[in-house]
Amino acid sequence: MKFEVLTKDSKTRARRGRLHTAHGVIETPVFMPVGTQATVKSMTSDQLRDLNVEILLCNSYHLFLRPGHETVSQLGGLHRFMAWDRPILTDSGGYQVFSLSSLRDITESGVRFQSHLDGSTHFLSPETAVDVQIALGSDIMMILDDCLAYPASHFETENSMRRSLIWAERCKKHFDAVKFGDGRPRISQDLFGIVQGGIYHDLRQESAARLITMDFPGYAIGGLAVGEPKPLMYEIIDQVEPHLPEEKPRYLMGVGTPADLAEAVALGVDMFDCVMPTRHARNGWLFTSDGHIVIKHAKYKDDAGPIDSTCGCRVCGTYSRAYLRHLFIANEILSSVLNTIHNLHFYLDTIRRIRQFIEFHRFDEFLTQTRRTGLRSGQVK
Amino acid sequence: MKFEVLTKDSKTRARRGRLHTAHGVIETPVFMPVGTQATVKSMTSDQLRDLNVEILLCNSYHLFLRPGHETVSQLGGLHRFMAWDRPILTDSGGYQVFSLSSLRDITESGVRFQSHLDGSTHFLSPETAVDVQIALGSDIMMILDDCLAYPASHFETENSMRRSLIWAERCKKHFDAVKFGDGRPRISQDLFGIVQGGIYHDLRQESAARLITMDFPGYAIGGLAVGEPKPLMYEIIDQVEPHLPEEKPRYLMGVGTPADLAEAVALGVDMFDCVMPTRHARNGWLFTSDGHIVIKHAKYKDDAGPIDSTCGCRVCGTYSRAYLRHLFIANEILSSVLNTIHNLHFYLDTIRRIRQFIEFHRFDEFLTQTRRTGLRSGQVK
Repeated sequence: MKFEVLTKDSKTRARRGRLHTAHGVIETPVFMPVGTQATVKSMTSDQLRDLNVEILLCNSYHLFLRPGHETVSQLGGLHRFMAWDRPILTDSGGYQVFSLSSLRDITESGVRFQSHLDGSTHFLSPETAVDVQIALGSDIMMILDDCLAYPASHFETENSMRRSLIWAERCKKHFDAVKFGDGRPRISQDLFGIVQGGIYHDLRQESAARLITMDFPGYAIGGLAVGEPKPLMYEIIDQVEPHLPEEKPRYLMGVGTPADLAEAVALGVDMFDCVMPTRHARNGWLFTSDGHIVIKHAKYKDDAGPIDSTCGCRVCGTYSRAYLRHLFIANEILSSVLNTIHNLHFYLDTIRRIRQFIEFHRFDEFLTQTRRTGLRSGQVK
Repeated sequence: MKFEVLTKDSKTRARRGRLHTAHGVIETPVFMPVGTQATVKSMTSDQLRDLNVEILLCNSYHLFLRPGHETVSQLGGLHRFMAWDRPILTDSGGYQVFSLSSLRDITESGVRFQSHLDGSTHFLSPETAVDVQIALGSDIMMILDDCLAYPASHFETENSMRRSLIWAERCKKHFDAVKFGDGRPRISQDLFGIVQGGIYHDLRQESAARLITMDFPGYAIGGLAVGEPKPLMYEIIDQVEPHLPEEKPRYLMGVGTPADLAEAVALGVDMFDCVMPTRHARNGWLFTSDGHIVIKHAKYKDDAGPIDSTCGCRVCGTYSRAYLRHLFIANEILSSVLNTIHNLHFYLDTIRRIRQFIEFHRFDEFLTQTRRTGLRSGQVK
């Protein structure tokens, strides 16, 4: 895996980069739509390609439980399974074990949990988390980490962060043994580290420093967007970033609104994933350059205009707000499909605009505009 | 509206024709996918065009109740509303009033009914049924008819058929007044008659004869596929067909399986609509050239093959049975989308094959094969 920083903005820490993977090149900053169960909900792979999605995120936890990583592997891996020939990033499953499953039993060796689907018991260790992702065949894998709820004390967070470091080391060791056991690389996949430490600067700093000694090809900032205030989230990113190596990509997990993307890019983040555009779409919440709209509102009943007259997506070029409201009210499947196309386009277009502003060394202007108007942010007016 | 019979099969009554409408030419025999609420469930208009759908059927009853035909009209009509620039046929709403709504009160003047959505009371007369469809702007409109459940006595059926004839006359009169009131045609829409009479030959014959004196540009056979045995349905079509003018298109409403299409084409039918391919798709029932498959079955868990290896649809060229099973089991929206693409392709491909066999004067061979194997029919093996 090769990462290049192409341009650095003059007034912020924003970077324009390029990440090379076995399934193609990703321009950064990049937004990764979430395809939890090997599908970005309601989207065909053709539609994702039409949107020029560059990389997807899939959830190992879900695929481990159903249809099973071994089944996916037998069928030729996740790319072939879901008919997606561009890059895929998988998470480790850790976050879902902590947020979705019940009866978790965490020990140094790993975590025992019950499936949220059928109550069956499973065990996830750092080594199995790596094995699952190798079986899935994702381009970018994530280490298994211990995920805390917010708020957590310094003591709790320190213990959790230390456990995550031990797990990170075991993930890396196991991964290297599989990949380089015979000398030459046997797989083209890569494994990213995840900085933990909650809201405590000393713990974040220690986590980053220890992970860097393990030499991962990329570093995620985990444990944010879990309920802490937004300014605190930005503060943590601001504090962590200087401790991360400049020549490696930085990935802010599970974030966020379009405004969050802009703020985090200004702090040096390169990669994002979030369910917000797709989940909001299914709930009829649509992003526009003039704030968001809730499509079910009666005021759109006769509205012949598009969701956003400045938007270049296929939906805005084809369908009226009145039609989209009708589909939503009538509980039609097409409502989810069209809303998802629009919201994903909005996010991807926002990221493409961010790239352009960085290339022109004018990202501060984009940021100022976003802060002043909250417009392209999709925040509530 | 112009209809041409291009070729007649030598050994059956099958016809290869062409119907000209304001929104384009339809090759016949034709299958019309059903877009009840101004959407073929889960399909974008792009996907319908990719499938080469030639004409859609939409349900006036549903659109009358929601979003309202006047709303659709204000928004530029149904074609613009749902972004479909090819022909549309609308039914009159009669069948849905009789099958979906409650508290029906039928008089000579029309039918009072309660909405299945919110219990609100509405009145549909022959004239309003025409007005609703004029507002929607469909290319082919249907007269309001009185629809009976099966079985019904000769007496009941006779009364109902006579009422339908009176309504047909009023529909035609009102339609002609709107269309030709000023001399030159003010709208490009056309109105089809519907032959009723249940399972009684004398009543069917009377209905056809009386409708023909009213000179409709096309004739539907209604009141079939309502629970009667299949051989009886074929028998009725067989008896009615000689009473219909050869130079007008014949439309068998709400039918049916692929085998039904073949049998009815052999009896001289030109047009079909049915929810079967789309509804079955959402339930995971997929048509193949080798019988149907129920995609949720465990035997498809590791099946890397396509739904149908002889199928040329985008889904069969892209996704495995194992993936489609996974989507269905995981209750993913994409399951409905992909299954619908496949099933619609199967129906449209069947109709295209039927056309070819007619052109080669070999339709009897297609029919024999269908009867012998039940294969392309999609019937249960």
